[in-house]
Amino acid sequence: MKRRAFLRTGAAMALAGPAVAAPAIAQSAPEIKWRMTSSYPKSIDAIFGTAQTLGRYIAEATDNKFQIEVYAAGELTPSRQALEAVTSGSVDCAFTPLYLYLHKDPVLAVGCGLPFGLNARHQLSWWTFGGGKEIVNTALKKFNAFGMPAGSTGAQMGAWSKKEINTVEDLKGLRIRVGTLGGPIFERVGALAYYLGHADVYAALENGTIDAAEFICPHDDERLGIAKLAKYNYHPCWWESGGMVHLIVNLERWNALPKSYRAIVARACDSANSWLLAKYDAINPAALKRLVAAGAVLKSFPQPVLEACYKASNDHFGAIAAKDPNFKRAFDSVTQFRREQLPWWQIADYACDSIMVGMRS
Amino acid sequence: MKRRAFLRTGAAMALAGPAVAAPAIAQSAPEIKWRMTSSYPKSIDAIFGTAQTLGRYIAEATDNKFQIEVYAAGELTPSRQALEAVTSGSVDCAFTPLYLYLHKDPVLAVGCGLPFGLNARHQLSWWTFGGGKEIVNTALKKFNAFGMPAGSTGAQMGAWSKKEINTVEDLKGLRIRVGTLGGPIFERVGALAYYLGHADVYAALENGTIDAAEFICPHDDERLGIAKLAKYNYHPCWWESGGMVHLIVNLERWNALPKSYRAIVARACDSANSWLLAKYDAINPAALKRLVAAGAVLKSFPQPVLEACYKASNDHFGAIAAKDPNFKRAFDSVTQFRREQLPWWQIADYACDSIMVGMRS
Repeated sequence: MKRRAFLRTGAAMALAGPAVAAPAIAQSAPEIKWRMTSSYPKSIDAIFGTAQTLGRYIAEATDNKFQIEVYAAGELTPSRQALEAVTSGSVDCAFTPLYLYLHKDPVLAVGCGLPFGLNARHQLSWWTFGGGKEIVNTALKKFNAFGMPAGSTGAQMGAWSKKEINTVEDLKGLRIRVGTLGGPIFERVGALAYYLGHADVYAALENGTIDAAEFICPHDDERLGIAKLAKYNYHPCWWESGGMVHLIVNLERWNALPKSYRAIVARACDSANSWLLAKYDAINPAALKRLVAAGAVLKSFPQPVLEACYKASNDHFGAIAAKDPNFKRAFDSVTQFRREQLPWWQIADYACDSIMVGMRS
Repeated sequence: MKRRAFLRTGAAMALAGPAVAAPAIAQSAPEIKWRMTSSYPKSIDAIFGTAQTLGRYIAEATDNKFQIEVYAAGELTPSRQALEAVTSGSVDCAFTPLYLYLHKDPVLAVGCGLPFGLNARHQLSWWTFGGGKEIVNTALKKFNAFGMPAGSTGAQMGAWSKKEINTVEDLKGLRIRVGTLGGPIFERVGALAYYLGHADVYAALENGTIDAAEFICPHDDERLGIAKLAKYNYHPCWWESGGMVHLIVNLERWNALPKSYRAIVARACDSANSWLLAKYDAINPAALKRLVAAGAVLKSFPQPVLEACYKASNDHFGAIAAKDPNFKRAFDSVTQFRREQLPWWQIADYACDSIMVGMRS
């Protein structure tokens, strides 16, 4: 265990130091190296880059004493097994979206943001002041992990489809690649959900395994070249309206950190969370413009489709809640939070946005 | 200068320490105490509390070695003279909205967010990746200061009025308390702007000096009791759609900080910025509900009023830009950024919000 060796070195330095001032200084700022596994490949550069930014922030705040090396998906552990690696301690921490682990505990998915759920801002408010961090960390504790939001994507791009989706009927039999959160809802309205990893989406669309696919944001979708294969892009991505990636840390490693290092990691996560949101906001508009110029056809999901999916979503999560009291508590918490938010949102930020959207046309 | 004394103490400790390890450690983590003046009184507790949170974050990340004592408006310096105090070094730093200083340089107001401007998220993206931090800090440099966003309010509550505002004509002669950003725009459409400090708003409404007033957010407006005096609340607050409070630091003091401390302050500011947004999102909805239950009548500004104000806003800032090339550069930068943002925003976050607002009813 490299990290423990470092901690030992720090302690040894402290004991060898002068009697009064130095021991406290050395103990409070030990040299630590951690390994972080990311659930994202390097090619998804904004999200992967957020993990690197997070590591840089921590190094800068500690005079490079606390360093975290970031590994891409697959280098240390497969994309979807980051939580297991943190639980066992084979990595110190991971940068991963918690919805990947809903088969272990659906409460974890609530930390990431549910379909027809909170937007990015409300998700963070719920996490910070609405009980979110307690609810999700109670669930993470069972997996020997502690988590903090560290990368918010905002609402993502909707599904790219080879065929038009004009009615609910058009979803019947549609073979769609979608994240594990949206999948069961598409299935309830008759589509066939394919849970393909990032690396497999393009080939599956190209060889005809699937008819439609969700990927990430315009920046990433453009890089993947998805519009060449499926030109109709349906928005909005109601199943990832405020997606949040977490830093999860092995619980013993977290508790062993000096208090000041825990504070530094927490602030670096806060910063990284808004950094990704700001980054995507800065790069997505130009990517969208280029996608449209290259032939992408933007379409909104028809209202009856949205209503069918909204009902399916409530049915789906309601069914899970009926069997799982912890999930029920989490689901009720975000649902109630959303209900409280909307009347104010509607006359404040949403109303300002409406003016500016209106002045555009 | 208390702070310099602390820096000197740190240096002395370093020289007295052992030859190899301790000097670097002591130099990189000196004991520093700063004084921060806030432009807000303690009664505006969410915003004042953000400055305290910022100070706490910095103390936690440095094992209490770097401490910032936060003073309320008036304790060290008047609310609207925080920049002067930072320039002269009579305080080390200030927590203040930069629009207060637009009479010194209108570019500073752009850092805070302009009327019909960017929303909170886009304001941060513009600051981080759209050239904002360079533009605003070039302006702040002339005042011997360096600034970072450290508290975002989101869109605020609109104006409280004793009279209904049904037409543009109804604005003629309306005596309204409003911030220095919205004031000139209300004046262009015929109202009379009163630039009263926070402490004077209630009395001016009560004794009939003014007919209407903007204050802050539902949480603050409720505490002030403004609805008892002027029951019609007009939304949205198009003149503060993404208000941002900055930490501004005396430039020499900033440059004298160890690199790691500068990084810690920067991350604390990032965190404080989203902390305030999350805090207001958590507390404003319930305050709004109570305001309405107590008799507040919510009304949206009529579309012709919005259009007249939008034109007046463009005329006003256009006139300043015609005379001030630096302001023109800043104004063009945010205007262009907003124009780029809207097409993506409209099909992503705004579309998700529209679904949820629609499902409400």
